[in-house]
Amino acid sequence: MRLALAGAGAVGASTLELAGEYGHEVVAIADSSSAAVSEEGLDPETVLDRKRETGSVGEADPEALFAADYDALVEATPTTLGDAEPGFSHVKRALEADRHVVLANKGPVAERYADVRDLEAGSDGEVLFEATVGGAIPALSTITDVGPGRVTAVRGVLNGTANFVLSRMAAEGLGYEHVLAEAQDLGVAEADPSFDVEGTDAALKCVILANVLYDREYTLADAEVAGIEGVPGSALELAAEDGRTVRLVGEVADGEVRVGPRLVPENGTLAVTGTRNIVQLDTEHAGRLNISGRGAGGHETASAVLADVGRLARR
Amino acid sequence: MRLALAGAGAVGASTLELAGEYGHEVVAIADSSSAAVSEEGLDPETVLDRKRETGSVGEADPEALFAADYDALVEATPTTLGDAEPGFSHVKRALEADRHVVLANKGPVAERYADVRDLEAGSDGEVLFEATVGGAIPALSTITDVGPGRVTAVRGVLNGTANFVLSRMAAEGLGYEHVLAEAQDLGVAEADPSFDVEGTDAALKCVILANVLYDREYTLADAEVAGIEGVPGSALELAAEDGRTVRLVGEVADGEVRVGPRLVPENGTLAVTGTRNIVQLDTEHAGRLNISGRGAGGHETASAVLADVGRLARR
Repeated sequence: MRLALAGAGAVGASTLELAGEYGHEVVAIADSSSAAVSEEGLDPETVLDRKRETGSVGEADPEALFAADYDALVEATPTTLGDAEPGFSHVKRALEADRHVVLANKGPVAERYADVRDLEAGSDGEVLFEATVGGAIPALSTITDVGPGRVTAVRGVLNGTANFVLSRMAAEGLGYEHVLAEAQDLGVAEADPSFDVEGTDAALKCVILANVLYDREYTLADAEVAGIEGVPGSALELAAEDGRTVRLVGEVADGEVRVGPRLVPENGTLAVTGTRNIVQLDTEHAGRLNISGRGAGGHETASAVLADVGRLARR
Repeated sequence: MRLALAGAGAVGASTLELAGEYGHEVVAIADSSSAAVSEEGLDPETVLDRKRETGSVGEADPEALFAADYDALVEATPTTLGDAEPGFSHVKRALEADRHVVLANKGPVAERYADVRDLEAGSDGEVLFEATVGGAIPALSTITDVGPGRVTAVRGVLNGTANFVLSRMAAEGLGYEHVLAEAQDLGVAEADPSFDVEGTDAALKCVILANVLYDREYTLADAEVAGIEGVPGSALELAAEDGRTVRLVGEVADGEVRVGPRLVPENGTLAVTGTRNIVQLDTEHAGRLNISGRGAGGHETASAVLADVGRLARR
């Protein structure tokens, strides 16, 4: 497939690097200020070197991305809340041009799902978004295979930063602020960690799951969300005495979306450690499926993006 | 899709029962002595009642199955070794008639993989076989998505009977013979349990994984196989003192297929309990993925069969 990449951060850059190995070519890439286009396929190294040295991917206007001759747009600009822009407009332009869309950006499918599906219905293009939930974990494709109507509940640990902080607090008996600072030093937590530790990121993933499972549209406003900032070290100690620990668990069941710190068995399936994620699906005919893996990272997320591209190519 | 079912055991019967819910219809089903065919779609209850009462699914000759107007053959006759018959001939007839094939029977893809792929290459039909490895666990579709060349190793606990026996031996401190008899009473182990406890079933699944991962053909003869009959209760006790336990682990890595009892951490990922299965994929760009779920059962396996049918329908 011929790919156009919107966004040249970790996911965009990794997709550019790996696409060739998966049998696809990147004919255009844009960041917020520039674009590079080549009908013969871009050379990843040239583009990424230029981005490192000059801060921009090419000499063209970002607008050139949409003029390229591509089969699928990969939308990997940062997730934004509310109107999900500029991601949503990118999706709209690609679908209106009858191109496929593969999302790494959660915004369009978390905040404007009905709009995206309406645009898709009027397009020859399709929208896939495996990378938006659980990184490398094949959560959405498994739901598609099982059939959304036959998935009775989804639970998951879907934010690596929050999980790293809770795992370290429990393992080392350290306080929240201390471990958070450590996570920031290690690059596991952002300078402003609120998106992760307040539960927003996990909630967006659960909202996307709800949109796939149910007939009505969900947005962040429909989720009941609590973060991990209020979890004291003493709570983890008390839990440990009882063979349990605390995880930031997201749950989609009975039409409700909830995210918050929950007690789980210390050696249980949901107690993944470090930055790992897990998705647990309860199904009508196949019992419970657990899928765990790396929930974030450029290569890991690009791998999910390219799995979606492969699915589109096989159809 | 219009389905023809070869085999009316637990998997065939469950597929017949569930197909309608997944939007497909069964136009023919055959057991070893009879067939039922209806161009308008068979009524599951009528067929299954008849089978229960008379031992045969219908009045037609089994041969009638292939004369039906179907899109995909579901091959769910028992797995046989060596020439993989009669499953292989069923696959051949369907592919030669340019129909798709979905396998629950491991034989054709474990013992005659190259022949199956050759037939597929000359057919408009495709062959899928998710149900042959790990029941409800989406192992093969995840490998397809990741790309077989990017999976560096697969490990798994792939036989529920052997796992039930080892879990019970460890949990209750009971001997092998005692627990096996108990498993037979519960219907978890067959009257002749050799296929499961000697590692043959797990090895066939690993051989199928190797066939998908590597370029050359594997059969059971290429696998190094040890079963669990020789595992003494004392080995489990010793392992437990060290925080470990024993599982029948299959491994496909570096071109080799090995199955045997292995020490694994007691609370580790591979130590699934009871009849659960787990598949662990090491990937080049996405780290390690673990998928666990029910590895056997009529509905569970039918669910994997119908996921394959859905994949074919979407193409």
